[in-house]
Amino acid sequence: MTVYPTIERLKEVVGDGEERAICEILAENVQFQPPTYYKTWTGRKPVAAILGHVGHIFSNFKYRRVFGRDQDWALEFHCNIGDLNAVGVDLITLNEYGLISRFEVVMRPHKTIGALREAMNARIMNDVRFMRFKSSLT
Amino acid sequence: MTVYPTIERLKEVVGDGEERAICEILAENVQFQPPTYYKTWTGRKPVAAILGHVGHIFSNFKYRRVFGRDQDWALEFHCNIGDLNAVGVDLITLNEYGLISRFEVVMRPHKTIGALREAMNARIMNDVRFMRFKSSLT
Repeated sequence: MTVYPTIERLKEVVGDGEERAICEILAENVQFQPPTYYKTWTGRKPVAAILGHVGHIFSNFKYRRVFGRDQDWALEFHCNIGDLNAVGVDLITLNEYGLISRFEVVMRPHKTIGALREAMNARIMNDVRFMRFKSSLT
Repeated sequence: MTVYPTIERLKEVVGDGEERAICEILAENVQFQPPTYYKTWTGRKPVAAILGHVGHIFSNFKYRRVFGRDQDWALEFHCNIGDLNAVGVDLITLNEYGLISRFEVVMRPHKTIGALREAMNARIMNDVRFMRFKSSLT
């Protein structure tokens, strides 16, 4: 199976929360839909910032099966949040330039997603950029 | 893309919670990992019963993108639980006979998975078979 270069790059940088490297593979108007609530973040900068924080909350992050082709991808991952286990899938859509235009994350189990939500809220409250970014959440 | 017959059949029967039809595509020792907690159900009968209940809790269930080939599949779905929206992925592994040997469900958002857990607990409490099935949960 041929894996698109953007997907290969995503696999390298997302687990460590490398915000600048993540930014380079996002489309300018990328939409990100988190597992924690039913809302959408829009725009390269806020989405890279969110993914950066997520990468610092997740530990032992590993992608497993990679499904997809052309513009549509699904990447199965396993990780820990504190001492809790999590399994998830990144649902990715690429635009015509091969950049990520949609990034939706589904996970299990319920308890671990709750722990992620708490950890994200704590990090975002201390990241002043989110004073500006909050208008990107709809 | 060629979709395995078991996956086609799954798409037909899972949304309506057709327990008997679901049973026919499960391996005898199928393992099911729900989005609600980090445990595993083992065995065709308990897993079909769980999926039957889930199908009755979900409304407006639709599969969208179907990823995979051979023994590994990922099926993206959308549905409602009460008036809440949900997105999820069924992560499926088939055995050498084409039956489902592993079925793991990841979802978003957190709140909807909580509503699913409450609805499942209420249904299972009223299904006497789970007095016996509970030993299948580890």
